Amino acid sequence: MPRPSVHDIEGLNWRQRWHRIIFEADTREGVRFDVMLLWAILASVCVVMLSSVPSFNQRYRDWLTIAEWVFTVVFSIEYFLRIFLSDQPRKYLLSFWGIIDLLSTIPTYLSLVIEGPQYLLMIRILRLLRIFRILSLRRYSDEARSLGHSVRASGAKITVFFAIILIIVVLMGTLMYIIEGPENGFQSIPFSIYWAIVTITTVGYGDVTPGTVMGQALSSALMIIGYAVIAVPTGIVSVEFAQNMRSGRVCPRCGLNDVDNDANYCKQCGLDMRSDPQT
Amino acid sequence: MPRPSVHDIEGLNWRQRWHRIIFEADTREGVRFDVMLLWAILASVCVVMLSSVPSFNQRYRDWLTIAEWVFTVVFSIEYFLRIFLSDQPRKYLLSFWGIIDLLSTIPTYLSLVIEGPQYLLMIRILRLLRIFRILSLRRYSDEARSLGHSVRASGAKITVFFAIILIIVVLMGTLMYIIEGPENGFQSIPFSIYWAIVTITTVGYGDVTPGTVMGQALSSALMIIGYAVIAVPTGIVSVEFAQNMRSGRVCPRCGLNDVDNDANYCKQCGLDMRSDPQT
Amino acid sequence: MPRPSVHDIEGLNWRQRWHRIIFEADTREGVRFDVMLLWAILASVCVVMLSSVPSFNQRYRDWLTIAEWVFTVVFSIEYFLRIFLSDQPRKYLLSFWGIIDLLSTIPTYLSLVIEGPQYLLMIRILRLLRIFRILSLRRYSDEARSLGHSVRASGAKITVFFAIILIIVVLMGTLMYIIEGPENGFQSIPFSIYWAIVTITTVGYGDVTPGTVMGQALSSALMIIGYAVIAVPTGIVSVEFAQNMRSGRVCPRCGLNDVDNDANYCKQCGLDMRSDPQT
Amino acid sequence: MPRPSVHDIEGLNWRQRWHRIIFEADTREGVRFDVMLLWAILASVCVVMLSSVPSFNQRYRDWLTIAEWVFTVVFSIEYFLRIFLSDQPRKYLLSFWGIIDLLSTIPTYLSLVIEGPQYLLMIRILRLLRIFRILSLRRYSDEARSLGHSVRASGAKITVFFAIILIIVVLMGTLMYIIEGPENGFQSIPFSIYWAIVTITTVGYGDVTPGTVMGQALSSALMIIGYAVIAVPTGIVSVEFAQNMRSGRVCPRCGLNDVDNDANYCKQCGLDMRSDPQT
Repeated sequence: MPRPSVHDIEGLNWRQRWHRIIFEADTREGVRFDVMLLWAILASVCVVMLSSVPSFNQRYRDWLTIAEWVFTVVFSIEYFLRIFLSDQPRKYLLSFWGIIDLLSTIPTYLSLVIEGPQYLLMIRILRLLRIFRILSLRRYSDEARSLGHSVRASGAKITVFFAIILIIVVLMGTLMYIIEGPENGFQSIPFSIYWAIVTITTVGYGDVTPGTVMGQALSSALMIIGYAVIAVPTGIVSVEFAQNMRSGRVCPRCGLNDVDNDANYCKQCGLDMRSDPQT
Repeated sequence: MPRPSVHDIEGLNWRQRWHRIIFEADTREGVRFDVMLLWAILASVCVVMLSSVPSFNQRYRDWLTIAEWVFTVVFSIEYFLRIFLSDQPRKYLLSFWGIIDLLSTIPTYLSLVIEGPQYLLMIRILRLLRIFRILSLRRYSDEARSLGHSVRASGAKITVFFAIILIIVVLMGTLMYIIEGPENGFQSIPFSIYWAIVTITTVGYGDVTPGTVMGQALSSALMIIGYAVIAVPTGIVSVEFAQNMRSGRVCPRCGLNDVDNDANYCKQCGLDMRSDPQT
Repeated sequence: MPRPSVHDIEGLNWRQRWHRIIFEADTREGVRFDVMLLWAILASVCVVMLSSVPSFNQRYRDWLTIAEWVFTVVFSIEYFLRIFLSDQPRKYLLSFWGIIDLLSTIPTYLSLVIEGPQYLLMIRILRLLRIFRILSLRRYSDEARSLGHSVRASGAKITVFFAIILIIVVLMGTLMYIIEGPENGFQSIPFSIYWAIVTITTVGYGDVTPGTVMGQALSSALMIIGYAVIAVPTGIVSVEFAQNMRSGRVCPRCGLNDVDNDANYCKQCGLDMRSDPQT
Repeated sequence: MPRPSVHDIEGLNWRQRWHRIIFEADTREGVRFDVMLLWAILASVCVVMLSSVPSFNQRYRDWLTIAEWVFTVVFSIEYFLRIFLSDQPRKYLLSFWGIIDLLSTIPTYLSLVIEGPQYLLMIRILRLLRIFRILSLRRYSDEARSLGHSVRASGAKITVFFAIILIIVVLMGTLMYIIEGPENGFQSIPFSIYWAIVTITTVGYGDVTPGTVMGQALSSALMIIGYAVIAVPTGIVSVEFAQNMRSGRVCPRCGLNDVDNDANYCKQCGLDMRSDPQT
C-alpha cells in the first residue's frame, strides 16, 4: 500500500499530538497506531468466532472471556479517547463511525446482565472499513467510489430489473404453492416465494423440491429464466464500467484526470496529447 | 420519483373529474388516489400470503376473511367505476389491464362456491405494474423500454442459444436415464431432462444425483458446459446495451461519432465543440 | 420466419419433383413436407419420452408401441426415399445427417431383438437442427455462425482458462480427499474431483459436503474462486461479440455487409456513407 | 500446435546434446522427449487416482504399486539428470519447477516409511504447466499473459469487491447464527460464515438451510445480493479485456485510433490506408 507522507509531530502539545495519532494516519506514530488497531480488531473478531464453537468454548472458556474483556476495555478506552480528543464530540458520537465504535463494546458489558449478546461484537468487523479509510489508501477508496458510481448510475435500470424479478418470484411462488401444496413441502405462499428465490438465483438448496411433473416443468422454466436473466444486470454494469473506466491518463494542462486512452486531444481543454504516452 | 405536473380539475363536470382522478395521475387527487390504491394492493397481497400460513390462518382466520372481503369489495367498486367512467368500456374490458382487474376480484367470490381459489388473488401483484405506468414514472418506463429493446434486438441470437441448450438438455437427460436408470433415481426421461436443466443452470437441488462413475463424469461435463455457456447470453446482452448507450454526438470536422456529452473539444481532432448543441 | 421464395415445380419429372420437395424448401410442397416432418419428429420424441414414464407406460403400452412403429416406418420410408432420390447416395449415407437419419430408426428394429435400446430414439431430436437448416432460416443460421465465430475466436483464451480450471479442480479434489477422506463421503480422488467440479461451477448438489472445519475453509475458497472466475469467460466472449457484432449495415457499392454503426465511410471501398441511414 | 523450428544437434558433445533435449524443445529429440514426458505424467496421475478407488485398489493393488514405482524411478532419474545437466544446479533446485519436480517423487519414497502420503503425488499435475511452457506454445502463453494482465489491471477493484463480500458474509453469517442458532444446524459462527459463502456464491449445498421465517427472509436477501453482485467482477474484467484488444492502428489523417486491422479505408475520414502497415 502507498506509504502515507510522514509529517513531524514535534512542536505540538500532547493533546494535538494524540489527536493527530488517533484520527490521522499521516505520522509514523499514527500509522503504527492504526496498524495495531487493525490487528486488535481482527484478533477480537476471531475470539468472538471461536467462543461460538462449542468444543472450543468448553475447553478455553476462561481464556476467551478474558481476551474478550481485554479487547473490550481497550476499545472502550479508545472510544473515550476519541470523544475526549475530537473537536466536536457530539458530531463524532452521532456519526456512523461513532455509533459503530460504541456498538463494538457495549455487548460485552450487556453480557454481564443478560446471556448471549456478545455475538453482536462481530459488528467490529465493520471497523475494518474505517481502517481502509484512515490509512487513506486513496487508490482503493477511488476504486470503491468508481464501483459505487457505476452501480448508482445504473440504478434505475437495476430497479426495474428487480421489480420484474420480484413479480416473477411472487407469481411463481404462488403458482407452485397451488400446484404442489403443503403435501410436497410447499408449506405456505411466503415459503414458496422463498423457494422461488432459491431457484431463480440458481442457489438451489434442495431443502424443498417439486414433486409433481407440473411443478418440475414450472421450476425448469424458473431456472432457465434465472440462468438467462443474470445476463441483464451484468450487461448493465459492464456498460457502466466501460463508460466511467478510469483511464488514469491525465491532461498536463487542465489536469483532467480521466482522458480516454484513444484521445488525441484533451476533451476538456483541447490540448494535443498525441505526444503524451498512453498509460 | 419525479412529481407529475399538477393540473387543475376545477371547471370539469364530476364525471370528467373522476375520470381524470382514476385514469390519470396528473392531478393532486389523481396521485393521491393512485398512492392509496398502491398501498391497498400491497396490503391485500400480504393478507393473501398470510392466510396461506397454517399457524397464522388458524389464529386470525376471521380477520383475514374480513380483510379479504373488504379489499375485494373495494377493488370491485373501482373496477365498475373504471367501466362506468371509461369512454370505450368494451376496449377497457378486453384490455390486459381490464382482465387483470377482473381476475383480481372474482376468486374471492368463487371461494363462496368452491374451496381454495382465493390464492389466485396473488395475481393482484401484477397491478403494481400499472401503478408504475399510471404514475408516469417516465424515467423508469424509459429504462424498461431500453431493457426490452436490448433484449428484443438480441432475440435471434438468444433463440439460437436456447435451441442449442434445449437439445443439449434433452440428449444429456436421455443419456443419464440410460446410464443411471430408475435404480439411481432417474425415474424417467422427462425427469432426467428436468435433472439436466437443474444441472446446466447450476441450480443443483441435489434431489437426485448421479450414482455411477460414468454418470458423474457426464454430469461434470454438463456442469462445465452450463458454467461456461452462461457467458454467451451475457456477452450478447452486454453488447446490445453498449450499442444503446452511444451519445450520437458527431464532430463536424473529423466526423468522430459518439463524442462524450461533457466534451468541450473533440478528443480526436481537437475541434472546439462548446458551441455545438449537445444531443 | 422469412417465407422462402416459392418456385414452380411444374415441368419437372416426378423424380426431380420429389427431390425438390424432400431436399429443398423453396417450393410450397417442400415447405409443407418439412413442416409435417418437423411435427412428426417432435411427436415421436414425445412418444419415446412418455414410454419411459412407468405409470404411463403400463397404461398405454400398446398405443405407445404402435405409435413408435408408425413413426419408425415413416422415417424409414423417408430415409430410403432420400437415398433413392439423392444424386450421390454414398455421400448422403456417410454425411452427418445421413447417419443421424439412420440412427433415428434402427433402435426400434433392434428392440425386437434386445431390450431397452428404443430410448436411443431420442437422437431424433438432433433432426430438428436439420429442419432449421432446410427451412433456410438464413437469419438464424447467420446468428449461429456469428455465435460460433465468437467462440472460436476466443478459443485459445478459453483453452487456457479451462486448463487452469482443470488443474485447480484436480488439486483441490485431491486435497479434499486427503483432508476429509472416505469417512466424510469423499470416497476416492475421482469422486472428490467430481465434487470439486460440482462446487467450482456453483452447482452444489450437496450429495457430499465437507464435514471438517479445514474442509469447509478449503471449499469456501473453491466456491469463491468459481464465483469470481466466471467473470473471465464472460469477459472474453463479451469482447469477442463486441468485435464481430453484425451491424447489419451494408455498403451499397462494395456490398460489405458489416459496416460499423459509427462508420462514415465504408472501410472496404471507402464509399461515403454519412447519407446512408444507420440501421 | 505450432511446430517449433527444428535445430540440428550434431556437433555438440553429448552433455550439451542432452541438455538441449531435456531443457529445450527446439530439436526433434527434444520435442519427442517432452511429449513422452507429458504422457508419463498423465499416466502416473491416473495411476494415483485409480489407487484411491477402493474397489479398484483391492483388485489391482500390486499392479498399481509397481506402476507407481516405475513412474517414480523414471521421474527421479529425470530429476537428477536435470540437476546434473543444468548449468547452475542450485538455481534449478530452488526454482519453482525444481521443487515441483522433487515433490513429484518423494511421496512414494515416504510411503515406505509412513502410510498414505502417496496421494500427494497428484502434485504431478502441476508439471503439465511446464510442458505448456517448454513446448513454447507461444500463442497460449500469450493468451495466459493477456488474461493475467487483465486480472492484475483490475486488481484494486477486485480487492475492494472481495473486501465488501467478506464483510457481508461475516455479518450475515453471524446474524444467521443468532437468528437460527445451533438447533437449526447453524452450529457456530465460523460454520454460519461457511453457510453464508455457500449461499452468496449461489452454490447452495443445502447441507444446512434456514428453518425460521426470519432466517429465510435474510437468506433470500443474501441470495439476491450474490446473484446480482456477480455482475460487478464480470463488468470489471470485461472492460479490462476490451481495453487489451485495441488494434492500435491509427489513421494518419483524422487520427482515428483503433482502425480495424482488415480496413482498407479509414471508416471515419475515408483515407486510403492500404499502404499503411497493419500493426
